Amino acid sequence: MQNFIFQNTTKLVFGKGQIASLSQFVAPGTKLMLTFGGGSVKKNGVYDQVMAALTGYDVVEFWGIEPNPSVETVRKAVQLGREEKVDMLLAVGGGSVLDATKLIAAGLAEPETDPWAIVLRRSASKQIPFASVMTLPATGSEMNNGAVISCRETKEKYGFFAGYPTFSILDPMTTYSLSKTQKANSMADIVVHVLEQYMTTTGQSRVLDHWAEGVMQTIFEIAPQVLADEPDYDVMSDYMYSATMALNNFLRMGITQDWATHQIGHELTALCGVTHGESLAIVYPGLLSVLREQKKGKILQFADRVLRLTEGSEEDRIETVIRYLESFFKSLGLATRLSEKGIGVETVEAIATRFTERGVHFGEAQNVDGELARKILLERL
Amino acid sequence: MQNFIFQNTTKLVFGKGQIASLSQFVAPGTKLMLTFGGGSVKKNGVYDQVMAALTGYDVVEFWGIEPNPSVETVRKAVQLGREEKVDMLLAVGGGSVLDATKLIAAGLAEPETDPWAIVLRRSASKQIPFASVMTLPATGSEMNNGAVISCRETKEKYGFFAGYPTFSILDPMTTYSLSKTQKANSMADIVVHVLEQYMTTTGQSRVLDHWAEGVMQTIFEIAPQVLADEPDYDVMSDYMYSATMALNNFLRMGITQDWATHQIGHELTALCGVTHGESLAIVYPGLLSVLREQKKGKILQFADRVLRLTEGSEEDRIETVIRYLESFFKSLGLATRLSEKGIGVETVEAIATRFTERGVHFGEAQNVDGELARKILLERL
Repeated sequence: MQNFIFQNTTKLVFGKGQIASLSQFVAPGTKLMLTFGGGSVKKNGVYDQVMAALTGYDVVEFWGIEPNPSVETVRKAVQLGREEKVDMLLAVGGGSVLDATKLIAAGLAEPETDPWAIVLRRSASKQIPFASVMTLPATGSEMNNGAVISCRETKEKYGFFAGYPTFSILDPMTTYSLSKTQKANSMADIVVHVLEQYMTTTGQSRVLDHWAEGVMQTIFEIAPQVLADEPDYDVMSDYMYSATMALNNFLRMGITQDWATHQIGHELTALCGVTHGESLAIVYPGLLSVLREQKKGKILQFADRVLRLTEGSEEDRIETVIRYLESFFKSLGLATRLSEKGIGVETVEAIATRFTERGVHFGEAQNVDGELARKILLERL
Repeated sequence: MQNFIFQNTTKLVFGKGQIASLSQFVAPGTKLMLTFGGGSVKKNGVYDQVMAALTGYDVVEFWGIEPNPSVETVRKAVQLGREEKVDMLLAVGGGSVLDATKLIAAGLAEPETDPWAIVLRRSASKQIPFASVMTLPATGSEMNNGAVISCRETKEKYGFFAGYPTFSILDPMTTYSLSKTQKANSMADIVVHVLEQYMTTTGQSRVLDHWAEGVMQTIFEIAPQVLADEPDYDVMSDYMYSATMALNNFLRMGITQDWATHQIGHELTALCGVTHGESLAIVYPGLLSVLREQKKGKILQFADRVLRLTEGSEEDRIETVIRYLESFFKSLGLATRLSEKGIGVETVEAIATRFTERGVHFGEAQNVDGELARKILLERL
């Protein structure tokens, strides 16, 4: 293992009915700004549960945080928060609402800086306290110190480092009203989060290899039940819990990581509006195919441990793993080819050019530049 | 999953040379009391590293915390800490030193209460800050909120809940000087910690089942290399990391637990001085044998996933798992029978009587009372 420092201070409050305990975690007299998305929490009853639990608190509401949240929206929220002199933020919704809230918390603590400058700096230096009631398992934002924000004006999308939520309440029942598309995107996101931390060099941490495999095995096993119309509480618990564990820094202590798929995927979202999960489902099989030699050891380990596949030539097993992952994404109902989204070579060239112009080198081996991104995307036409 | 609240605030500082960074984690001007065991840290150079890293701090030293630390020793340390008006404690050593330090931290914060009363209350209500430089992977104390203390006078040994260490520094190089016996005991402890959280009812958390299996698989795989005279850094890293992950509350979110083996083992230690790891190696195969019907589903899951054993009758596979674990403990060089330690039926009866008199019911199903403890121990004569 490489040297590392790990600390995750988020209080995870998990289970049926836990939203009702909200006031246990917010000091009396705290002035709260609640942040929301488009209104699904009004339909599924979460809004009512939150408001009932916060009886007696001075509460301001900010509505309208969109999927792939924009800095333009964040600026409006920062202004409201400043006018209302709020002490703390509570994100109620999915990863997008919470990601935006992390930037709002930074914007309120650093009034002299435009929020986009904080994103471009890649790190918040201070933030007012924030917490979440998470309703869409996917990003892990509820228990990590990262966030991803888009700028509509420049069509850019970047991640930045923030603090950890003070607490996050996760009630698996809140996932019952998610659409099939939301659940499909979310499961692709969970699996690729794990792969970005796993599909690298072998032999870095035996424990974390097993843990990463365990989260993926869980999602592979429960995916059909998660997508089913009749939700099962235990299955939805495992689903929600997997999302949190996939990206709460547990799986990346002392190991190298990749994240090139996310970087390429962000461009597909920024330029063409592809949903985040689907962008990963499209890019990942291409990345693995193009980098199969570099990632050979880990792909074969995945074949052995996750698929229990020990027979056949190495090349056959590698091909089976790539096809298995592609089939998994397809089984969720997601596109795995650019053509399915009407995206052609001109977008591939635009992304390659962006990467080349920015001089970036992504991935575990820092070799995913414009040229390699082109190769990966051409494989996915 | 059952409802749960999880928060682990310890900062884990892991890797080669990390002791030198100690002063980054202690505010200037803090008056520290360092707590030590019998002196092995003077021989292996850890003491010198710590003192060099703390140049400029006002430091008091307390020496002599024994394995299975006693409240008698803790009382002396509390007195010294009080006289010296220390602000913070730094345990330098293994789990025993840190466990004692957790009680010293409570004793210093609650001067009107005798430390044993805190143990009997099963929980510290307040503590002064404490941290650790961990040199013996085993108890997980470096990243959890528990501790186990013995009373020499009454020959009793109990666990109690404390706060989390502010930080813990783990340098795998500090394990290079451990004896074979220390490493053997520690690996038995790690595996049984996991088993106490895993070998219960099936289907509670798919993720945590995989994670528990992963920690055990890691130890089963590396045990011979850990015991070898020539230490390998990556192996010792996986070993040290496994110990922390085995008992830092990660593996028990929202699931039932057992801990009956520990309760019976504590009696063997308290009454006969059997080392902690060896007490577990003796008791565990007996517990699993006696409770094989109750734990059948999980034993078969272990057979399938850890041993990849899918052939044969259920009874045969269960027997293979029990024998596998017993053989593993033996391969570490530990006793797995009471007779090997010169312990006979009179001790079995004494433990059964203690359990009956205390009216305790341990284990996942709360059915391990004096009668069942007798049955388990008689199986281990």
